[in-house]
Amino acid sequence: MILDVDTGIDDAMAIAYAVADPKIELIGVLSSFGNIEADRASHNALNVLDMFNATDVPVFIGNHNPLDHQYQRIDINAQIHGENGIGDVELKASERDISEQNGVDFMVEAADRYGKDLTIVATGPMTNIASAIQKDKDAMKKVGNITIMGGALTVPGNVTPVAEANIEQDPVAANEMFTSDINITMVGLDVTLRTLLTKKETQQWRDTKTEAGEKMADIVDFYIDVYDDIYPELGGCSLHDPLAVGVAIDPSFVQTIDMNIMVTTEHDAYYARTIGDKERLNDPHTNVKVAVNVDKERYLKVFMKRFLDLFQATK
Amino acid sequence: MILDVDTGIDDAMAIAYAVADPKIELIGVLSSFGNIEADRASHNALNVLDMFNATDVPVFIGNHNPLDHQYQRIDINAQIHGENGIGDVELKASERDISEQNGVDFMVEAADRYGKDLTIVATGPMTNIASAIQKDKDAMKKVGNITIMGGALTVPGNVTPVAEANIEQDPVAANEMFTSDINITMVGLDVTLRTLLTKKETQQWRDTKTEAGEKMADIVDFYIDVYDDIYPELGGCSLHDPLAVGVAIDPSFVQTIDMNIMVTTEHDAYYARTIGDKERLNDPHTNVKVAVNVDKERYLKVFMKRFLDLFQATK
Repeated sequence: MILDVDTGIDDAMAIAYAVADPKIELIGVLSSFGNIEADRASHNALNVLDMFNATDVPVFIGNHNPLDHQYQRIDINAQIHGENGIGDVELKASERDISEQNGVDFMVEAADRYGKDLTIVATGPMTNIASAIQKDKDAMKKVGNITIMGGALTVPGNVTPVAEANIEQDPVAANEMFTSDINITMVGLDVTLRTLLTKKETQQWRDTKTEAGEKMADIVDFYIDVYDDIYPELGGCSLHDPLAVGVAIDPSFVQTIDMNIMVTTEHDAYYARTIGDKERLNDPHTNVKVAVNVDKERYLKVFMKRFLDLFQATK
Repeated sequence: MILDVDTGIDDAMAIAYAVADPKIELIGVLSSFGNIEADRASHNALNVLDMFNATDVPVFIGNHNPLDHQYQRIDINAQIHGENGIGDVELKASERDISEQNGVDFMVEAADRYGKDLTIVATGPMTNIASAIQKDKDAMKKVGNITIMGGALTVPGNVTPVAEANIEQDPVAANEMFTSDINITMVGLDVTLRTLLTKKETQQWRDTKTEAGEKMADIVDFYIDVYDDIYPELGGCSLHDPLAVGVAIDPSFVQTIDMNIMVTTEHDAYYARTIGDKERLNDPHTNVKVAVNVDKERYLKVFMKRFLDLFQATK
């Protein structure tokens, strides 16, 4: 598995989940702009990996900007993820360096090498994936599956009534990915807004009396507090990114529908909307499975077991 | 079954399907504004019923206008359905009268009387249903199922990028219906744009050498020609309304997802959008089954058998 992140509080949880699951070999973490600038996101990823003793997982930087415009961090991201991207919690700074190889090159090489055994989980903008497709589409078409946290098909967006944040960061890239004919699983707001974590669960992390458990609880409690302010009706924080990792490992967590998806790139009220592609509506061949329902109880149970085991293992 | 129509070419096919299916007792046809004015729509319904010798099925008029504004026929409806609503084909004028009872009263009485044995299929605006709910919600909550042709959840709308025509006629009424907690099956553009009829099939109707077959072929060929102009990529006309009747009779024609739906009633770019209701996203109780995939081959086979049998029976 390759994780393509913009760390980000829920990206930090996605990294934790991927490190924790015994069925997964995490061969690298790619980082891009999104919740925070790419440089900062990649250092956050390094620090999180090291906190879990995953010091053998390299971190790469991919794109610093969307395909067709300049990245600028929006205020809401600082509000949701903190100034430093991980809830303004200070983690021990990793002594490792970011890999020198470009993250997109790493992704293309891995796609070519591992083919269907490779799963890419993207929890940030789709820019690195689009760049990889532009670089070597044949290699990327060999990938077994790309599971993304992104989009909103059956529910409103979280940036506009139609746009979800990861897609809105780079709709051109997202559209390039969706229309590429690669096997994609879309884990969007349709399911992530239903998969919630509360301080009852983070307290269990603290109860492990481990530094990793304590730090992750500090990070995620920041997120839960923000959610209480912004989405009081939810009663917890959404497990956006770690749900994508969970579904990549065990697709039976979600009910999916087979679709061909496109992203609106025109700069109007429908900008960055993920929606069925009218031109391919009657094409019997589809390349996207959109998650529309989630077995949240079972997922949360597995999620908690993975996290508690991970924290215990750092003792 | 009660049909609530705005006849309309595909409404005429919905009426034919309901008359043709031996499992269905059609107890009445309600008519409202929509594709055409309510008065004309009700006379079209009468004439279609009489053509199939269904002279025992009464026709009622419900609302002439949407709940919160005045009805005005839009040009596209004259283009799609013809000036007279049924492809400018002249049918023999029925000698029957429109029932004197108000259609909404008829619906409420039937709901109260037949309860879960009653299925309402609405292929026009949801105004009559909303009026019935306003009149006697308890009676309407007894209804087994309301199956509607309307909305677009996973694909773009046909009036705006988010609005489907039946919903757009009266979003306030549609929202009242969706949020009423009545069991609803939504057969929207998600599936109807995939269920197509061509002149190959209408030729088979003509081949029955019946007046009914010939007239229906004339009506539907008008529709197919319009579709060729407006949606050349489809390669046929959509079986919007008769698919709703088919699904009401045999839900296994479609794959559905369980949702709580709302309709945007604000007058902005998202007006008349059918979308997951954020406020009820984590409510384990849902009242809408949204059709997202259709077994079009099997449906078309049954559809054709019903129609051919119906035409033969008029001999």
